[in-house]
Order: sequence, then structure tokens, then C-alpha cells
Amino acid sequence: MSDASEREPMSDASEREETVPEGAEGAPADVAELQQRIIELEDRWRRALADLDNLRKRVSRDAERVRAEERARAAAEWLPVLDNLERALEHAESDPPSIIEGLRAIRDQAQDVLARLGFPRRDDAGTAFDPARHEAVATLAQEGVPEGTVLHVVRPAYGDGDRQLRPALVVVAREG
Amino acid sequence: MSDASEREPMSDASEREETVPEGAEGAPADVAELQQRIIELEDRWRRALADLDNLRKRVSRDAERVRAEERARAAAEWLPVLDNLERALEHAESDPPSIIEGLRAIRDQAQDVLARLGFPRRDDAGTAFDPARHEAVATLAQEGVPEGTVLHVVRPAYGDGDRQLRPALVVVAREG
Repeated sequence: MSDASEREPMSDASEREETVPEGAEGAPADVAELQQRIIELEDRWRRALADLDNLRKRVSRDAERVRAEERARAAAEWLPVLDNLERALEHAESDPPSIIEGLRAIRDQAQDVLARLGFPRRDDAGTAFDPARHEAVATLAQEGVPEGTVLHVVRPAYGDGDRQLRPALVVVAREG
Repeated sequence: MSDASEREPMSDASEREETVPEGAEGAPADVAELQQRIIELEDRWRRALADLDNLRKRVSRDAERVRAEERARAAAEWLPVLDNLERALEHAESDPPSIIEGLRAIRDQAQDVLARLGFPRRDDAGTAFDPARHEAVATLAQEGVPEGTVLHVVRPAYGDGDRQLRPALVVVAREG
């Protein structure tokens, strides 16, 4: 048992698959032979259960590790944004006009981080209203614009499809 | 096999554990009985292998899902920061003095997000230099300050111990 628990479940399972013994059906067998086969099968079966148990334990350990790793990876992406926020504040008092430029750069940088994580900022102005992607906060009649067109994005969406972090809040054209 | 593949490996393994048949050793056995036992054991063993195979497949599917979920969860935390950056820029032109206040609030908010993700900003000024947590960018003699004291943090660390995203860049006191 302790031996089985050291081994890698994957390779084991396939190795053993190749050595499947013949079933009980077949040529006349003597008792000693059958008993030997039973011992072997019990051993194989117990080892498979041990492998299953080990894999199960590994799965729960791994899920937590994967989660923590991914969280750290995603968080680390934001450190330059934090640094620039601090830097912009340090310079804000001495050179007020520079702060707007700095703030703009930080906003672009933050949007880049989200895009790299798989959630680019979406620009929905001018597209057709889609309840899966948009949430209407108001409607507005506007000449020459077809009903259901997104006129204005109040709060942008990030990501798309399955990977949408939130829908966009939009103002939609209605019939005039 | 198709039946085994539907079942949950965990509960199966323990259920079957309770029904371990006696070994080949023991009271005199007839051939038919032994053959029956072999059929049962083969079935159990094959089911354990099938469970192992299913669990293995599930593991690789799950890791990707866990990763994507965690990435989305971490990314979503930053949306209010992004919103506030955009909002600060919108108001910057009309009310320049307000921008510094806004920027300060955004910095605090961004630090809060990192703390919630498990990586609080660390203030290392005044602590003893520790190569696992600090990276010295300069040394400076300062009267009355013991050698090896962190005098100034050039770039802060976030997180601690295993969960440190990066070490702090620091200026360290040396002997005068």
C-alpha cells in the first residue's frame, strides 16, 4: 500500500492495463492457479484504489495552489499601475498640469492590464442593443438613428462573450 | 464500463472498500467459487481504473476552469478603479484642484483591492533589512540609526511571506 501510494497514478493505470489477466472463463484451471490469480487481482485492485485516493488528494491540493498562483499572477500585473499612481501623486503638488497627462497614462496602462488578462475594454457605441452585452439605463429619440442603437456608453464593458466581466451600461435610441 | 464512467470516483472507492472479499488464502474453496471471485475482482479493478481515468480527465479540465474563474474574479475587483480613473479624467479639465483628491482616493482604492486579493502594501521603513523581503538599492550612513535598518522605501512590497508579490526596494543604513 505504501509502495502504491508513492507511484504516479497515470502511468500505473496504463501499465497495468496491458497485463490484464484472462478472466475466470476459459480452460480448466486448478485451484492453486485460481488462488494465485485472485491474489494478483486483489493487489491490482487495491493499488488502483490507492492511486485513486492519492489523485483525489492531489486534486484538492492542486486546485488551491492553481487558484493562489493565478491570483498572484493577476495581482502582480497591477503593480506598475500602483507605482504610477503613487508617483503621479508625488509630482502633483510640484507640477499640477502634469497630473492630467499622468492620469491619462495610468488609465491607459490599467486598461492594458485588463486586456492582457483577457478582458479588453469594449466600445459599444453605435452597435445594436444586445441584452447579453448591454444594460439600458435610458432611451433617447434621435433623428436618423435606428431604434435600438446604442447612442452612448455610460459605463463600459470589459471582456466579451463568456469572458465578459460586466455588461455595458448604455443609452439606447428609441423611436422619435 | 460506461456505467462506471458515470459514477463519482470518491464515493465508489469507499463503498467498494467495505466489500473487500476474503483473500485466496483461507478455507478450502471450490473452483466455481474462485472463478466467481475472479470475475468480481476483475470488475472492481476495471471500475477503479475507469474511475481513475475519469478523475484524471476531470483534473485537467478543472485546472483550466479554476484558473479562468480566479483570473476573472481578480480582474473584476479592479473595475471600480478603472471607472474612477475615467471619472477623474472627465472632471480634471473643469476642476483641476479636485484631481489630486481624486487621484489620492484612487490610489487608496487600488491598494485596498490588492489587500483584498491577499497582497497588502507593506511599510518596511524602520525594520531590519531582510534579504527575503528587501532589495537594497543604496546604503546611507545616518547617525544614531543601527546598521542594517531600512531608512527609506523606494518601491513598496505587496504581500508577505509566500504571498509576497515582490520585495521592497530600500535604502539601508550603514556604519557611519
